[in-house]
Amino acid sequence: MKTPFYYRRPIRWGDTDAAGIVFTAHYFDICMETIEGWFLDVLELDWFAMTHDHGIGSPFVHAEVDFHAPLTPRDTLLVRVDVERQGNSSLSLALTGTREVDGQCTFTGRFTCCFNDLASFIKIPIPDELRHRIDDYQRRCAE
Amino acid sequence: MKTPFYYRRPIRWGDTDAAGIVFTAHYFDICMETIEGWFLDVLELDWFAMTHDHGIGSPFVHAEVDFHAPLTPRDTLLVRVDVERQGNSSLSLALTGTREVDGQCTFTGRFTCCFNDLASFIKIPIPDELRHRIDDYQRRCAE
Amino acid sequence: MKTPFYYRRPIRWGDTDAAGIVFTAHYFDICMETIEGWFLDVLELDWFAMTHDHGIGSPFVHAEVDFHAPLTPRDTLLVRVDVERQGNSSLSLALTGTREVDGQCTFTGRFTCCFNDLASFIKIPIPDELRHRIDDYQRRCAE
Amino acid sequence: MKTPFYYRRPIRWGDTDAAGIVFTAHYFDICMETIEGWFLDVLELDWFAMTHDHGIGSPFVHAEVDFHAPLTPRDTLLVRVDVERQGNSSLSLALTGTREVDGQCTFTGRFTCCFNDLASFIKIPIPDELRHRIDDYQRRCAE
Repeated sequence: MKTPFYYRRPIRWGDTDAAGIVFTAHYFDICMETIEGWFLDVLELDWFAMTHDHGIGSPFVHAEVDFHAPLTPRDTLLVRVDVERQGNSSLSLALTGTREVDGQCTFTGRFTCCFNDLASFIKIPIPDELRHRIDDYQRRCAE
Repeated sequence: MKTPFYYRRPIRWGDTDAAGIVFTAHYFDICMETIEGWFLDVLELDWFAMTHDHGIGSPFVHAEVDFHAPLTPRDTLLVRVDVERQGNSSLSLALTGTREVDGQCTFTGRFTCCFNDLASFIKIPIPDELRHRIDDYQRRCAE
Repeated sequence: MKTPFYYRRPIRWGDTDAAGIVFTAHYFDICMETIEGWFLDVLELDWFAMTHDHGIGSPFVHAEVDFHAPLTPRDTLLVRVDVERQGNSSLSLALTGTREVDGQCTFTGRFTCCFNDLASFIKIPIPDELRHRIDDYQRRCAE
Repeated sequence: MKTPFYYRRPIRWGDTDAAGIVFTAHYFDICMETIEGWFLDVLELDWFAMTHDHGIGSPFVHAEVDFHAPLTPRDTLLVRVDVERQGNSSLSLALTGTREVDGQCTFTGRFTCCFNDLASFIKIPIPDELRHRIDDYQRRCAE
């Protein structure tokens, strides 16, 4: 597994709006694709399996993006994921989106999800196996 | 014009994900619909006309949402818009999403856009006419 | 209940792409909003309740749109729904999208869904109560 | 260049709806991603550059999909593109979406676009260079 995790994402026509740049709301689709990929590769956790097979959810309680430079379909993004904080039930991730061609930072984001029991919507502690993988990723990113 | 401005938005099937609730990224579509409606009703400003006819843009530099309770297609949202801060070029709006049926707050959001010249992407001061309408709205909300 | 059913839909900034017109794929979001509204108003059937409370689905087996004229956020759409054909399990709807301001037809569409048992994904006959409402709507549209 | 062209697309959480399968309208996003990729790889044509640098558009005049089997985030799609017909101004493509794991056909689609001058929205003939590349692709697919 490569560390840190990067999601490579060409900007597409469908991401744009009438100003010719990526539409504000679409950044959050791109961020969710990034985070889903990180869960799959780094935590070996598939949201769909977690939900359907294990009755566990990880709904987001906070999502934010700061936009530093516009993006167009001429760009390919590289989105890096860092662990910002691991709580008892919650996990905060920091995302950094740079243009592949010149490394310019185009956006930064912070996303926090909270593990819960899907049936009751009551918080549960992050399972130990995941906790170890998150710690491990954080350690390797810091090296 | 009604003050404060509320955007009424039934939750739809297409807003949901496999957990049976509104997908994280879709909240930002709903918030952008809300803000576009506020610009149109309160500022009498149409984003498409501003962009195409006047060469002025208002790209967002910050967008964030805190999620307090899940939403399903059984819900209808009421999203209230308040002016948080008006800078020289920037405008920060506070959004509050409540369930119509019982008034429960389901999310809060903060969105900041920055007026610019579309050709150069250089910041411009908020035009005086808009500034007055924003002030006026803020005053009437505070009453 | 008004017959025929019309869904009124202002075109929004988020519907557009870098050509300044509504993006091809977004027409299908608009059509699904229309059909969901028709099910709710005319058939008194809520997709979410049908799925979650009754274990019945109505997945689409066919969707098509012919595009006659571009749309921008200067336009408001009126989308009319007609029943094209009611089979044993399937229902075909014809959609006609016109510009509110001048009645120009901007697109036409055909969508076919098929009722099934969600657990087995096996087709089921359209329930009698729905069948009567569909017949009734078709009759009133023809008058 | 590989012939035929295949777009490989993992199904993601954000593609799903509350029935736990890919939402009808999202298939059209996936198809547009596929076609954009085919234009780029096979025709060496970038929609954004074509629009912004050359004032030429290729709006879609028809889009349809037949859905044969549901998709979930457990699936990865392979979408094949074939040329169905090349007219004077129009180009019809046939899409076939199969599950990577077992080759099961999950959907088929037909999409027709029409080249035009963006300023006047008047049809233009397909430029010769593109015409040759389209012919060439069709020939190699038939071998």
